[in-house]
Amino acid sequence: MKHITSRDNAVFKHLKALSGSTQHRRRAGQSVLDGVHLVMAYLDAGHMPAQCLVSERHIRHPEVAAVLDRVDPDTVILLADNLFGQLTTVVNGVDLMALVETPEGKLPQTIDADCVVLDGIQDAGNVGSILRCAAAAGVRDVFMTPGCAFAWSAKTLRAAMGAHFHLNIVEHCTFESVHSRLQVPLLATSSHAKQAVFDVPLNAPVGWVFGNEGAGVSEEWLSAVTTPVTIPQPGGMESLNVAAAAAICLFEAVRQRRAG
Amino acid sequence: MKHITSRDNAVFKHLKALSGSTQHRRRAGQSVLDGVHLVMAYLDAGHMPAQCLVSERHIRHPEVAAVLDRVDPDTVILLADNLFGQLTTVVNGVDLMALVETPEGKLPQTIDADCVVLDGIQDAGNVGSILRCAAAAGVRDVFMTPGCAFAWSAKTLRAAMGAHFHLNIVEHCTFESVHSRLQVPLLATSSHAKQAVFDVPLNAPVGWVFGNEGAGVSEEWLSAVTTPVTIPQPGGMESLNVAAAAAICLFEAVRQRRAG
Repeated sequence: MKHITSRDNAVFKHLKALSGSTQHRRRAGQSVLDGVHLVMAYLDAGHMPAQCLVSERHIRHPEVAAVLDRVDPDTVILLADNLFGQLTTVVNGVDLMALVETPEGKLPQTIDADCVVLDGIQDAGNVGSILRCAAAAGVRDVFMTPGCAFAWSAKTLRAAMGAHFHLNIVEHCTFESVHSRLQVPLLATSSHAKQAVFDVPLNAPVGWVFGNEGAGVSEEWLSAVTTPVTIPQPGGMESLNVAAAAAICLFEAVRQRRAG
Repeated sequence: MKHITSRDNAVFKHLKALSGSTQHRRRAGQSVLDGVHLVMAYLDAGHMPAQCLVSERHIRHPEVAAVLDRVDPDTVILLADNLFGQLTTVVNGVDLMALVETPEGKLPQTIDADCVVLDGIQDAGNVGSILRCAAAAGVRDVFMTPGCAFAWSAKTLRAAMGAHFHLNIVEHCTFESVHSRLQVPLLATSSHAKQAVFDVPLNAPVGWVFGNEGAGVSEEWLSAVTTPVTIPQPGGMESLNVAAAAAICLFEAVRQRRAG
């Protein structure tokens, strides 16, 4: 087991850059999974981390031991407590992280299964929450436009709680690249729509577009929507948070398929 | 119109304390509404701000003018741009804020309408998102336990987008104070439950308990749940974000009532 005690160590410096910067993660094609839950989810999905990092104070923690049992011992790095503290954003957690190659999603030749398009969703918490919802609802393909928050940032990963490893997440999708492959009806919520989401048959595969927090779905994507739907809001508020709207839509499909 | 140009001004100092600190908001019983949307929602609900604050650069902005037309001119304060900038958390917004007396919720004598109990929900974004969902779904009463994030913090207000003013929000509720008044069945999501939320009749008024992000619903509240329900998750993820779960439950009730 490698042991790092100096902040000048090159491996530590690389980890620190990846931990603190979305730019670094994008450029290196690597991500850092912070906390036992995320690392376990990654292992459970059949992946192996490039490196596992643990602090001196938690090297004998039972949750850490359970992870280390499952990885190549040569990839485990022991970090001085103060160095580990400089990397983590988890407060009061168990000191475990994994450095991983960012899984690369693939645009299918033909999009004929359920999918979700995230169109310029800027808040990492919203992206994470929708990823988590999609994975729970059994949707596998998520296509993200260039204006979205980075799917592999610390904040998005934390909000999605491991959903990333159940999904095929494709970032930087152009409209054309997705639309030209799309073989399913495309739905989006709109306050102008006539049909309520509860009245639209969702038994066959569908695509959902969820838009930017302020501006909503972009013109380009709106033009491709085959079925605009409303979410009836008897309380008279004008809108829902996009992640809440996504939860309602995705689980209305779950409900209908279960019923029918 | 009062004009403030010095950071030593007592009114400015009070505003600054309220803007930056949840503690100050709690103690003073006052809140700051940041941005045109929130202030408009407050006015639309029939309230009058104690003070309206606008920057020099935006005093003639049409959205500001629309608000100032509706308030007592004696309550309008013009702030030097740099002072306004020290108060706001809204980036690239229109410079308008209102100082308001925090509306105080009231525990009804008898709880016989739909209600939501937030049990130790710590994330202000989740609290705000659930408030927004409840208001949209037509639920009016929200009871919050002492462990919850502050309902009137800048972050919660921003996430709820004006829902606060459609709701009766009662903070610091003890279990006894709510439970002893409760005349409706109490529902909570649980992965151990046998019944899916989609199969439970929700046409009559119900109470929903949503629990802490990590620990879930507390023992005390769990013991009072009459109808535990699951949200079927065909994707096999173990859980949903609490705000997503709340959206699914509250809008399943909307769906059923609309249908039947």
